[in-house]
Amino acid sequence: MGASKRVSEAVIKRLPRYYRHLSILEGQGIERISSEKLALQMRLNASQVRQDFNCFGGFGQQGYGYNISSLLAEIRAILAIDRPHSLVIAGAGNIGRALTCFAGFEEMGFRIEALFDVDPAAVGTEVNGKPVLDMAEMEEYIRAHNIEIGVVAARRKAVQGIADGMVRAGVRGIWNFVPVDLVADVPTENVHLSDSICALSYKIAHEED
Amino acid sequence: MGASKRVSEAVIKRLPRYYRHLSILEGQGIERISSEKLALQMRLNASQVRQDFNCFGGFGQQGYGYNISSLLAEIRAILAIDRPHSLVIAGAGNIGRALTCFAGFEEMGFRIEALFDVDPAAVGTEVNGKPVLDMAEMEEYIRAHNIEIGVVAARRKAVQGIADGMVRAGVRGIWNFVPVDLVADVPTENVHLSDSICALSYKIAHEED
Repeated sequence: MGASKRVSEAVIKRLPRYYRHLSILEGQGIERISSEKLALQMRLNASQVRQDFNCFGGFGQQGYGYNISSLLAEIRAILAIDRPHSLVIAGAGNIGRALTCFAGFEEMGFRIEALFDVDPAAVGTEVNGKPVLDMAEMEEYIRAHNIEIGVVAARRKAVQGIADGMVRAGVRGIWNFVPVDLVADVPTENVHLSDSICALSYKIAHEED
Repeated sequence: MGASKRVSEAVIKRLPRYYRHLSILEGQGIERISSEKLALQMRLNASQVRQDFNCFGGFGQQGYGYNISSLLAEIRAILAIDRPHSLVIAGAGNIGRALTCFAGFEEMGFRIEALFDVDPAAVGTEVNGKPVLDMAEMEEYIRAHNIEIGVVAARRKAVQGIADGMVRAGVRGIWNFVPVDLVADVPTENVHLSDSICALSYKIAHEED
């Protein structure tokens, strides 16, 4: 199969979970796993796992199960994490800095090239070895370095303008951490921390219902 | 209606978004809004908005629309964010520190009381005025201070043990930032940043399909 084959939204949502879990197994030196065992570990059902893997051409061998490194290679190709991606972060505040220090992204090939901020005290400093540059230079930088992903971690009022500038400069996707529903002409993923803590609060409050 | 009335999962997922959007409108001094206008701003459809609000007893007035502060009060009660919540964070690394510095949570009533870490260099320091304490003291602290929510931002291998300790000590919910599927007997919300960036990578790669 080609890596560009379309798989259903539901399968796509499960792919990063499979990827995480299979990576842990591979790290433990495990080479093969049956759909039953994997399903049990991930609290899915085995026929679901088999159906998902069939979708992208991962075929288990009767009595042997799935080869973990082949599965991982297939999933990496579908998720397009078999090649590096360049990112810039707009906003060198706490969220922007934390993301820059999060080693996991670099390991997966998501390379943060620079941060941008309007605060003169931040501009010219470094975060985890990455430069903090003047927000006014962001579009030029994105063009010059052919940056693929723009990360939005700036103040709420500024974010739509920043996202517009990123798209104008040519980013192909936006990763938004600000609790605002951005409008953009490129694929966007939102991480709304306040929505998540509200959902937890709801679940706790209604646990006894 | 009572705040404890059960509403559907789909409505619950939209509630934090309504809450965010209506809060912004309230901040702009707007008192009323029609379902049509709100739907347009939030890219939902108006009958959906009306149906959602009916669910929890928010009734618009023909020709006047919805009273924003009443709606917000209802949503706050349902999400249980009309009262304060206490949190501790296990892990004073970059994610733990960023969360501690994120002012938005305190404003919503989510009060981070302390961080816990195993690193002797971190223990005894402060993050944004909150103490970093020895991980060995966490359970005792949770019991003594009747902490409601445990935030997990520690190293991957330690997280299940930490979550177990939190539950044993009496937390009523867990907010997990580590890319591991935790097993816990209390409501859990996961923020899997690596899943989110993988999903974005997928969307970008398959945009042209």
